[in-house]
Amino acid sequence: MARMLIAGPHPDDQELGMGGTIIRLASQGHHLLLLDVTNGEPTPLGTPETRRQEAADALGVLRDAAAKFAERNNTEPGSIVRVCLGLPNRYVEHTIENRHAIAGAIRAWQAEALFTPFFQDAHPDHLAVTRLVEDARFDAKLSKVSMPWPIDHWTGEPMPAPVIDGVGVDPKNPPTLYPKWLFYYYASHLRWVADPSFLIDITGLVDAKIDSINAYHTQFVLPEKNRKVVEWVKAAGTYLGSRIGTDAAEPFFTKEPLGLVSLAGVVGLA
Amino acid sequence: MARMLIAGPHPDDQELGMGGTIIRLASQGHHLLLLDVTNGEPTPLGTPETRRQEAADALGVLRDAAAKFAERNNTEPGSIVRVCLGLPNRYVEHTIENRHAIAGAIRAWQAEALFTPFFQDAHPDHLAVTRLVEDARFDAKLSKVSMPWPIDHWTGEPMPAPVIDGVGVDPKNPPTLYPKWLFYYYASHLRWVADPSFLIDITGLVDAKIDSINAYHTQFVLPEKNRKVVEWVKAAGTYLGSRIGTDAAEPFFTKEPLGLVSLAGVVGLA
Amino acid sequence: MARMLIAGPHPDDQELGMGGTIIRLASQGHHLLLLDVTNGEPTPLGTPETRRQEAADALGVLRDAAAKFAERNNTEPGSIVRVCLGLPNRYVEHTIENRHAIAGAIRAWQAEALFTPFFQDAHPDHLAVTRLVEDARFDAKLSKVSMPWPIDHWTGEPMPAPVIDGVGVDPKNPPTLYPKWLFYYYASHLRWVADPSFLIDITGLVDAKIDSINAYHTQFVLPEKNRKVVEWVKAAGTYLGSRIGTDAAEPFFTKEPLGLVSLAGVVGLA
Amino acid sequence: MARMLIAGPHPDDQELGMGGTIIRLASQGHHLLLLDVTNGEPTPLGTPETRRQEAADALGVLRDAAAKFAERNNTEPGSIVRVCLGLPNRYVEHTIENRHAIAGAIRAWQAEALFTPFFQDAHPDHLAVTRLVEDARFDAKLSKVSMPWPIDHWTGEPMPAPVIDGVGVDPKNPPTLYPKWLFYYYASHLRWVADPSFLIDITGLVDAKIDSINAYHTQFVLPEKNRKVVEWVKAAGTYLGSRIGTDAAEPFFTKEPLGLVSLAGVVGLA
Amino acid sequence: MARMLIAGPHPDDQELGMGGTIIRLASQGHHLLLLDVTNGEPTPLGTPETRRQEAADALGVLRDAAAKFAERNNTEPGSIVRVCLGLPNRYVEHTIENRHAIAGAIRAWQAEALFTPFFQDAHPDHLAVTRLVEDARFDAKLSKVSMPWPIDHWTGEPMPAPVIDGVGVDPKNPPTLYPKWLFYYYASHLRWVADPSFLIDITGLVDAKIDSINAYHTQFVLPEKNRKVVEWVKAAGTYLGSRIGTDAAEPFFTKEPLGLVSLAGVVGLA
Amino acid sequence: MARMLIAGPHPDDQELGMGGTIIRLASQGHHLLLLDVTNGEPTPLGTPETRRQEAADALGVLRDAAAKFAERNNTEPGSIVRVCLGLPNRYVEHTIENRHAIAGAIRAWQAEALFTPFFQDAHPDHLAVTRLVEDARFDAKLSKVSMPWPIDHWTGEPMPAPVIDGVGVDPKNPPTLYPKWLFYYYASHLRWVADPSFLIDITGLVDAKIDSINAYHTQFVLPEKNRKVVEWVKAAGTYLGSRIGTDAAEPFFTKEPLGLVSLAGVVGLA
Repeated sequence: MARMLIAGPHPDDQELGMGGTIIRLASQGHHLLLLDVTNGEPTPLGTPETRRQEAADALGVLRDAAAKFAERNNTEPGSIVRVCLGLPNRYVEHTIENRHAIAGAIRAWQAEALFTPFFQDAHPDHLAVTRLVEDARFDAKLSKVSMPWPIDHWTGEPMPAPVIDGVGVDPKNPPTLYPKWLFYYYASHLRWVADPSFLIDITGLVDAKIDSINAYHTQFVLPEKNRKVVEWVKAAGTYLGSRIGTDAAEPFFTKEPLGLVSLAGVVGLA
Repeated sequence: MARMLIAGPHPDDQELGMGGTIIRLASQGHHLLLLDVTNGEPTPLGTPETRRQEAADALGVLRDAAAKFAERNNTEPGSIVRVCLGLPNRYVEHTIENRHAIAGAIRAWQAEALFTPFFQDAHPDHLAVTRLVEDARFDAKLSKVSMPWPIDHWTGEPMPAPVIDGVGVDPKNPPTLYPKWLFYYYASHLRWVADPSFLIDITGLVDAKIDSINAYHTQFVLPEKNRKVVEWVKAAGTYLGSRIGTDAAEPFFTKEPLGLVSLAGVVGLA
Repeated sequence: MARMLIAGPHPDDQELGMGGTIIRLASQGHHLLLLDVTNGEPTPLGTPETRRQEAADALGVLRDAAAKFAERNNTEPGSIVRVCLGLPNRYVEHTIENRHAIAGAIRAWQAEALFTPFFQDAHPDHLAVTRLVEDARFDAKLSKVSMPWPIDHWTGEPMPAPVIDGVGVDPKNPPTLYPKWLFYYYASHLRWVADPSFLIDITGLVDAKIDSINAYHTQFVLPEKNRKVVEWVKAAGTYLGSRIGTDAAEPFFTKEPLGLVSLAGVVGLA
Repeated sequence: MARMLIAGPHPDDQELGMGGTIIRLASQGHHLLLLDVTNGEPTPLGTPETRRQEAADALGVLRDAAAKFAERNNTEPGSIVRVCLGLPNRYVEHTIENRHAIAGAIRAWQAEALFTPFFQDAHPDHLAVTRLVEDARFDAKLSKVSMPWPIDHWTGEPMPAPVIDGVGVDPKNPPTLYPKWLFYYYASHLRWVADPSFLIDITGLVDAKIDSINAYHTQFVLPEKNRKVVEWVKAAGTYLGSRIGTDAAEPFFTKEPLGLVSLAGVVGLA
Repeated sequence: MARMLIAGPHPDDQELGMGGTIIRLASQGHHLLLLDVTNGEPTPLGTPETRRQEAADALGVLRDAAAKFAERNNTEPGSIVRVCLGLPNRYVEHTIENRHAIAGAIRAWQAEALFTPFFQDAHPDHLAVTRLVEDARFDAKLSKVSMPWPIDHWTGEPMPAPVIDGVGVDPKNPPTLYPKWLFYYYASHLRWVADPSFLIDITGLVDAKIDSINAYHTQFVLPEKNRKVVEWVKAAGTYLGSRIGTDAAEPFFTKEPLGLVSLAGVVGLA
Repeated sequence: MARMLIAGPHPDDQELGMGGTIIRLASQGHHLLLLDVTNGEPTPLGTPETRRQEAADALGVLRDAAAKFAERNNTEPGSIVRVCLGLPNRYVEHTIENRHAIAGAIRAWQAEALFTPFFQDAHPDHLAVTRLVEDARFDAKLSKVSMPWPIDHWTGEPMPAPVIDGVGVDPKNPPTLYPKWLFYYYASHLRWVADPSFLIDITGLVDAKIDSINAYHTQFVLPEKNRKVVEWVKAAGTYLGSRIGTDAAEPFFTKEPLGLVSLAGVVGLA
């Protein structure tokens, strides 16, 4: 089972782009860190406090769904943790300091795979976060240089050190590592037509995904016009599912070719 | 475990393009039909008799390697069967009759996945075979029309009916089916630079692959200049392996997006 | 107002791929010929008779919807005509004779724009029809050679000669012409992810489109598993609509760059 | 009729890339803001004063041509306004401050569509401006944050507030908005071969376009070698016109799929 | 110096697509066979007799220009020969017999490089010829099978056997060979925007190229609307020349990556 | 013969990506500046002192090989010079100051062609250097502004002024110029599958290339796992050579179309 970091420029991006996949991967035993790069505020109807609560609620939805899906499939679910770096919403920049902040989170979580928004987007924060994650992947492996241990903006406390195979990661000196994979999920404000490298089947997980999105009450329930976004997310899932012969799916992109040791995970051949 | 059909315009194309993958998939329990569309003759140094023997020898190499690899990994290997349709080498054409001949093989084997050469090639037979396979995939599912049961050109006998879950396929009335996947492997005479959708790790299987190629003695051992082809195949494997962080790999292409139910088969996450 | 020919390999392909656009274009005054290349039979539950009736019913749905939409928008609707060439379903081939059959229809209708299925497809008939249309576009302009006037397979009668600006086309000697545009619509049996050159907004036309599809009762209502196709079509419409900021849209492809004399037709700028 | 903002890194980029389209769109009633991001100086033969005068002269050429073309087509022309932001030529950087400067212009003009140079270019200023415009499009819609009202570098005065439907925009509090479209025009110093999403017919407008370019006397008339650029622009127009069957055309790119409500603006179908 | 075969579906395609390059390559000492696959007739104003004469005239223009350009550059020009296969205009098909006809010409000329129209085209003959050339390239190398020696349709006589390094090719048994390169030139009836792999500088050769085109008097001088085609060809040359910094250029495409032993031929580095 | 600048983010990138081509181009008389943007340190086993020595050793290997290859081919070799800019390893940023530092080197060397790493990479320094080179190409041509003459970080001394056609470049006032070509070589830490615009044959130069890489003893000999990189480089060379029919090759990319004045440099036609 692998350790994965899913970067969201704002809380809710991860749910919108790959909420179903988060549930599936966690249900299969992977350990996931949802890294909120900003707290997402200000927005028209939100406040930092409501946003923090909503992010926590969404996390609860995802965890519950993962546990239930694992039970149904007789698998042992992995953990899902959420941490916010607290960079300034609407002002995220591609700087070395910010690269290192994310590299610190990669080391802290000992992430073997990274997920970040697709590199075509209309939102400046999304573009900046993705450039940061791309560079931080490399920074995380640099010898002879330390990266800052994440302080969780939601709590003001250092991110709890994960325990891996019974041993805690040392916040003072987490091992360097190079995440093997960098996958892009689609949460783009650009009206880009997804051209995915692969899709992940989320059959049976759509309702929970939508619940996790609607947990952001100030973003998708209160503002009437944003409810349409939720409809779009559902339709995209159904359409993309039809491309692999399942009820629903989420798209992913990778610049590096996907490497397989088997076709065991392929829809219809599993 | 799935049933797969691997079409080769000429015997040796399957080995050149995906010999390592054949071994790996068979070792994992999949059941493979190597469908030689022609007998590959005439060639400068071959005869139909030598080619038949070489195809059989290559099959033996693949089967032995699959059995050994399965043993090493504690898996139960699947079967590998070889059948030749006997279409005329150098004169393969894209006709409805030929489409149906291949559709007949798809039904006979009850193939859920197809492999055929990449659609950019300099060899007219390769281009024709791939067009035939693409169309035959659809023909195989047509209701109210029968397709010819394959006669094995190597033996002159009808292809033996496979037994699936203890029940033999009825040669007079094999069920219609639509193979879920059509994958392209690279065995191109065009000097195309592979741009794969995904790669399959063949670490530890390169020697057996090369042995299976060299089993075509009149094609790759006797003609000195063709020995270079074997070197190229090896180098391509190493280069492509480097693209997914393994010792060697083989490339594949799919026009339909790859659908996954897990990342279990992904290199480094398995 | 322009004259347009929409080729469907089988009746229902036009509705599936661009039913909403057919309604919109007709409502705006364009004159459309739905050219069924085959009668679509045999299928599991259909017969030539039911299919003929269903094609007529679908045509009725489209005509009614166009009339209503025109009324709502105070425009003068154009005509929609349906003719079947009666080539053999499942056996359509790319021959000069078949090219000329379609070139004859282009001349008969004096079509200035052609629509045909996207050139990536799993269905051999679709691929063949699209190659035929591509070539027939050129054949239609050839001087010194006549093309056959279409005989409508549904009625056994010659296609009625259209009257253009008060003058009837002469079936014995229809003028040659080269359709200015060849657009591809998506009705693919390949699980291709649409990568459109442009989208046409079908807001408000989805229900009528679905009705026109369901008019093919033996294809989409009786066979339970095909009802899913209708769901997919709806979801694709919603998803693609979200790409241009409308409730629904249909995708189109053009190999030749789209040429505009104004941005008057662009969503949001109109 | 829509309000459009056309960003030029230096005065003359808009004329070179889309001078004909500017005339056409204005003649059709759209209201255009030519936003010069820098004053274009220093250059070998120019001065800030000559450049200001040349930009004004070019504007005059465009306005006159739009008025004449409108008269010929019986349309009511829209306005063309020119404002210079005065960022430092050769030193334009992708900063939040510069993003906001452009976002301020978007709000001030209430621009519904943006045009900016294609994102592949050899000129650092072009690349920077396009990144700024891409991000500013999003910044312009942000609630709870004000953007600076543009000061026109040419006059040193605040940009005059436009009057829309009889109501003036309030410089102290212009409404937020998200421009529906971001189109890229080609004015690249990279010898890129244009791969346009669509072309706009500029038949009959080439002479006026060339006049507007030659109004930059210090850039295209005095320096003999730059006269070649004007020849290239003409040839590109003719070549691209041939791709849509018109005398001349200008190319445009869009990352978001073009959405149409009709084919009314399509060459040959209008 | 190399031997090259330039296939034209109809006489004039070679001149339109690469007339300047033909002159340049011949002037540099390469030996070129212009292979007219059909005689190009019927056309509205042509006859087989006029077309034969025009093809001969065009050849004369190319030869003279090559000789003059060679003299100017102090190089020894190679030969240019023209042969017509006489396949039926408007009815060229992709058959094995036609493949072999072209393979016969490849062997007869001992062609090391082939040029054929780009594979996207609206003219069925162009598409067919290019598929034939692609396949014939491979057929030409097949051992144990003879290909027909070309009969020149213009004269009714067998094509004269070329003399290579002082030895004549034996028409009864020309050596097999595999042309190292297959390049596509652009002479497309589709309004395709050229996306070339490389361009060849034709500075100083445009006038001669245009003369060679106008030698087809019944095609480009008599029919007034076709004179526009010549203007387009000129503009395309100027535009594409601007992409490599020369006065004019012609575009080429290759599916196989271009391999260089030096940058000696690169514009500006030579 | 041309003057070329080959930018390496760290010493060894040039050798890894295009060591064979460096030898070949120098052997043919071109004059090459290897510009190390950083000194490459820190690394796990290196020090600034060892890295300086290794860079010098690698340079010696390249020079010797170029001299020998020139002798074998009876050509007059050009010079190879190495200079380090000393920007901070791991902290290279895309700033105007850094752009100008590279523009200064372009002017100092009077470089007509630039080589820089491919623009898809996982290493932040590589991405930054390539953006700097892209912009510096343009900065180098700017009139009325001076760029800093390079100080060689390895020696602390100003880079020696080259002598061109017997005249030394004046460090106080080197001429402005715009390098005609910008080529990308592949030295990417991203597992990108090369998609080259063209390949350069390095047959017979692989051993010397590998020697030049192994001269970086602390990078590729001492660290056992990095020896694999050298194997990958060799395999990539063999694989890519097979794509142009040579023993080995190196890939290059260009955004601007390659312009040729002859096919003299093309493999097999030279």
